[in-house]
Amino acid sequence: MSKTCVSVSAAANIALIKYWGKETGPGNQPATGSLSIGLEGLRTETTLAISDKQSDLIDFNDSEASTSRIVSYFEEIRDLFNFTHHFVLTSRNFFPTGTGLASSASGFAALAIALDNLLQLELSDKELSRLAMRGSGSAARSIYGGFVEVVKEQDAFARQIQPANFWPLGIIVAITDPNNKTISSTDAMRQTQLNSPFYKTWLHTHNADMEIALDALMSRDFAKLADVSESNCMKMHASIMTSRPSIIYWHPATLAIIRRIQELRNNGLPCFFTIDAGAQVKIIFEPAALDAVKDGLSDIQGIKQLIETQVGGEPRVL
Amino acid sequence: MSKTCVSVSAAANIALIKYWGKETGPGNQPATGSLSIGLEGLRTETTLAISDKQSDLIDFNDSEASTSRIVSYFEEIRDLFNFTHHFVLTSRNFFPTGTGLASSASGFAALAIALDNLLQLELSDKELSRLAMRGSGSAARSIYGGFVEVVKEQDAFARQIQPANFWPLGIIVAITDPNNKTISSTDAMRQTQLNSPFYKTWLHTHNADMEIALDALMSRDFAKLADVSESNCMKMHASIMTSRPSIIYWHPATLAIIRRIQELRNNGLPCFFTIDAGAQVKIIFEPAALDAVKDGLSDIQGIKQLIETQVGGEPRVL
Repeated sequence: MSKTCVSVSAAANIALIKYWGKETGPGNQPATGSLSIGLEGLRTETTLAISDKQSDLIDFNDSEASTSRIVSYFEEIRDLFNFTHHFVLTSRNFFPTGTGLASSASGFAALAIALDNLLQLELSDKELSRLAMRGSGSAARSIYGGFVEVVKEQDAFARQIQPANFWPLGIIVAITDPNNKTISSTDAMRQTQLNSPFYKTWLHTHNADMEIALDALMSRDFAKLADVSESNCMKMHASIMTSRPSIIYWHPATLAIIRRIQELRNNGLPCFFTIDAGAQVKIIFEPAALDAVKDGLSDIQGIKQLIETQVGGEPRVL
Repeated sequence: MSKTCVSVSAAANIALIKYWGKETGPGNQPATGSLSIGLEGLRTETTLAISDKQSDLIDFNDSEASTSRIVSYFEEIRDLFNFTHHFVLTSRNFFPTGTGLASSASGFAALAIALDNLLQLELSDKELSRLAMRGSGSAARSIYGGFVEVVKEQDAFARQIQPANFWPLGIIVAITDPNNKTISSTDAMRQTQLNSPFYKTWLHTHNADMEIALDALMSRDFAKLADVSESNCMKMHASIMTSRPSIIYWHPATLAIIRRIQELRNNGLPCFFTIDAGAQVKIIFEPAALDAVKDGLSDIQGIKQLIETQVGGEPRVL
């Protein structure tokens, strides 16, 4: 083994056509495909080394909850690749931590790339995306930058549809709740699948959304992408809200932003919102609309922080 | 004709199992049944007289929009009962006006009762409820006080399930938006029926909700009534939100109240929320919980007014 240590930077991503619901069984196999944008400004740096100890040493954003998840992941990796050594892992988010922005996507993507590099596995991008997905469903998408699709097959994988420079959209992440969400995506997915009366319709209307969004992306049709993305987002949150007991990820400020962005778009500004399983809102816009979007958000109470970024997020071995 | 003038007081009502969606054709025939509570404290007083003029004279809360609706209603009435005279109508809401609390329920119920009385039609309550329904779908329920069901049949009607004293629940109406809503219920219903992917599921799961709610009511099972009422409310708003374009009746303060009431109920307080097509929230609770509910709402920003009331709303000829 030529290397004993590697560092990787990978970025978070935001799904326009959402992943919500898993197939039963291990490996985070998604119930549907998804389409995402890499977020250049929200990066995780991960350093992985081979240990000479008999146990793994893990510091994943000082999070104990994450540690047990990664220990299991390392067990899987050792089984999968007949590897006997243990690891030393340090992972740090270079964006506001503890804000409920899922860092598992960038974290597990960086880890998969680091493992491939360190163990000289020479995996294809497709195989890398599957390795990341074992850690976190949305991590498969962060193996790439730009515009990325998860293809739902027997063994799902992610692929890049277009690089970031194909359509250099602007993105603002509006933090409305600095606390971690009260229910994890995994648990909320399970509950939605179990008893939301709308979950079946979510599944059955998903392919049509994917097709429209991919068309909109390839033709750089902003209005079409905005319509289908917001609709898909509302369908996801409506499905979650109608699970029993009801789960509401939105906070009052989340709703204030939704209403404001709807208003701005109705007035002709090329911008739209999307929201993952949390209270934060991501606003996507044509670059020329940046100042108008910021101005539109300026008087909304309850926004803790705005992070300006853009499409990107290509991972890098450092 | 013995009388030339009559005054009637009727109350607004709040649906626990909602009416959302109309059959095509005239007469506000609902797509589903509904179950409501009469709101003792939210009353409309209507005075109706026979006119010696050749046109109707209408003052319905100084609202010009309502005037044309009532002129059409009077035309229907004249056709229906072979009546040739015109009317003088004055209608006043004795609760905060212009707050988006639907006054059409109490207004058209009072008007139907006044017509019956003035024209000596001697209609049954069932026929009265149908007469009110021609003016506004939810008005059929305000022909009665207490707990009222709309029975969905070829020709739907309302009937009282239990009088108010069967279960003297407390109710608080929290006003979060003093302005009229931007889209009428009728238009929003049409749009939801037209293109919300969830509307069919709303229809197909409605009878089950009605049965559970009626069971809960008859056995005074508060937790069961709370669960099914909140779930039905969330399903309605989720269906509306996912119509295209999306319609969101909630304001940030609406959501803040939803979250707070969920929290109070999770902590064991017997209270739940429901929301009609607007931003106001109605909180229903066991009377002993009044102070705790008020205390729970006291620090929420954006509540303009709290109206304390209780189950009731029996109409009265004055």
